[in-house]
Amino acid sequence: MSEEKTIDPWGAVEVKDYSSAFQQFGLQQFPEEWRKKLDHPLFRRKIVIAHRDFEPVMAAIVAKKPFINMTGIATSGPLHFGHKMVIDLFMFLHSLGATSHFGIADIDAYVSRPDSKLPSLEKAKEYAIENLANALALGVPKKNVFVQSRMPSRYYEFAFEVSKKMTSATFEAIYGHIDLGKVSANLLQYADILHPQLKEFGSPAPTVVPIAIEQDPHIRAVRDIAKRLPYKMVPPSSLYITHQPGLREGMKMSSSVPETAIFLTDPPEIARKKIMTAFTGGRDTAEEQHRLGANPEVCKVCNFLKFHFQDDKKVSEIWESERKGKTLCGEVKLFTADFVEKWLKQHQAKFKKFKPVAEKMIYG
Amino acid sequence: MSEEKTIDPWGAVEVKDYSSAFQQFGLQQFPEEWRKKLDHPLFRRKIVIAHRDFEPVMAAIVAKKPFINMTGIATSGPLHFGHKMVIDLFMFLHSLGATSHFGIADIDAYVSRPDSKLPSLEKAKEYAIENLANALALGVPKKNVFVQSRMPSRYYEFAFEVSKKMTSATFEAIYGHIDLGKVSANLLQYADILHPQLKEFGSPAPTVVPIAIEQDPHIRAVRDIAKRLPYKMVPPSSLYITHQPGLREGMKMSSSVPETAIFLTDPPEIARKKIMTAFTGGRDTAEEQHRLGANPEVCKVCNFLKFHFQDDKKVSEIWESERKGKTLCGEVKLFTADFVEKWLKQHQAKFKKFKPVAEKMIYG
Repeated sequence: MSEEKTIDPWGAVEVKDYSSAFQQFGLQQFPEEWRKKLDHPLFRRKIVIAHRDFEPVMAAIVAKKPFINMTGIATSGPLHFGHKMVIDLFMFLHSLGATSHFGIADIDAYVSRPDSKLPSLEKAKEYAIENLANALALGVPKKNVFVQSRMPSRYYEFAFEVSKKMTSATFEAIYGHIDLGKVSANLLQYADILHPQLKEFGSPAPTVVPIAIEQDPHIRAVRDIAKRLPYKMVPPSSLYITHQPGLREGMKMSSSVPETAIFLTDPPEIARKKIMTAFTGGRDTAEEQHRLGANPEVCKVCNFLKFHFQDDKKVSEIWESERKGKTLCGEVKLFTADFVEKWLKQHQAKFKKFKPVAEKMIYG
Repeated sequence: MSEEKTIDPWGAVEVKDYSSAFQQFGLQQFPEEWRKKLDHPLFRRKIVIAHRDFEPVMAAIVAKKPFINMTGIATSGPLHFGHKMVIDLFMFLHSLGATSHFGIADIDAYVSRPDSKLPSLEKAKEYAIENLANALALGVPKKNVFVQSRMPSRYYEFAFEVSKKMTSATFEAIYGHIDLGKVSANLLQYADILHPQLKEFGSPAPTVVPIAIEQDPHIRAVRDIAKRLPYKMVPPSSLYITHQPGLREGMKMSSSVPETAIFLTDPPEIARKKIMTAFTGGRDTAEEQHRLGANPEVCKVCNFLKFHFQDDKKVSEIWESERKGKTLCGEVKLFTADFVEKWLKQHQAKFKKFKPVAEKMIYG
């Protein structure tokens, strides 16, 4: 497939040229001096690449003043390591003192997806239980979770208030053609992002929403709405994260193409197999690899480590060793498969523990 | 103003030619044999003029089987006698054994009106309290009332589910241009009409919604949605009622033109004055009136009696007497002013009693 010009939010193709997307949307590169202050691999390794109006959040972090940390999951499928990355970022911001709101977007998921993808609200809630149990297992505190379908009436009332503050002209300018399901799902997204600033749920504060670049239209829309609502609100800021590369060539990790992804619910031996058969771009023979070296930038396994292996030094060693041809890709695969297998076993034990908790939070 | 070709749901002009509207929308005249079975002035006096698919409701009434009776008020202003008529009809259907749902549409009112008409949600709730206290004073039982902004989450979830079952093509075909505030307000209207058939709120049954003719697009939309939803639902039926004529020539009773209306909260002496200065179309002199007679069809005071005075015989006498010139319009005005003044005094005593109940139901 050729280089994309427009970015399809629902596509599975990797975005190759982020800089043109920056220009198109008016985003700013994430500055080096902020990376130094944010001690997490996702910042250090430049997986967080850009921002929109992050200054007020950064100022709040530095001054230890209140700020809101908001993210959400549309529960339309099982979670994979791409989602884990977003949750890792959420938890890091939480550790910096944020007031955190983690949204389980079950209504949104059902309403915005075609029936062929998500046939019923019940199915969205099944995924909600799975997604939520995974989030809890990843450390998201129960008290920081909100479930769209279990909110008090004020939340929904607010979603409808929001609809009054957006003209269809603005909507069309941002999203193109209006589709009713998407309109109403978007109302919930805006309510998700803004409701923590309402007096019934919290108070006005700089808000950070970590998103993938193709979600930027929502941020532009919600910033516009924040200024029009009859409440004191700080227009939300966003962080843009690169997609977790998938395990196949030229694809991001995507639920809609299962062989590109390692799901948090994959049996460890299946995950192991997925790593062992992932695309690396390595040389055809050991001799060639030793002589010419390989390219960790294109290697899906090296990238997996970059996104999920904590130890900077080890990741760097592996990358350099593969680049110089000292290591064969098979060796990197074995190392990564061991890591993933072990990680999944531990995670899934926690997941099992949190499953009934999640069930109660969705249906209780 | 000249005869309208299209009907403006928010206009104040009287609809003169209902038969062309019937044809345009595909409605059916309300049959004589049903009028005989429905013992209420609004049926006898042909104020209920048409229906859409009323057969299943009529069958349920005759067989004493369950049916749903649903109406609602968008709380965008004070209630007048035009609203009283709708509530009278609602209460008559209730007396026939219906499962009744009376909706206080406060979110809808705020979201679908421009700020110039309804500047805030608080204002919509102020009207909600006034409207609800009036409805309770008119006999609507508290347990049959639901308030949009105070519903359990399942109601809102359902409103969003509904959005998935309407394509923007259908929406545009029915309503013309899509306006976001109207889209979202409509979702609530559809949920209002259909939620009594959900297992969480009731069960499937023939449903009657009494409406003014220009609200028919909502019925067509909601019938289409009822068929697409993944729940067992009977597509709702509707009754079409003529507008309460206003007190000025050529106008319906409308909150937006206060001099056309007698509000349920009008001080009785003000209401009296409004009746005494209403348009009658009577002759210039007593002599002429006696000689030529007058026209009760155009007389706003005679019409007021037709819509609100219980005693058929008395109304008929007054109409015939005015028609033949035996009575002067001033005499009819005096009679009607006395009736309205007395009625309002009694009603407002009840209203006062129900005001704190209504306050609690809105803000509780």
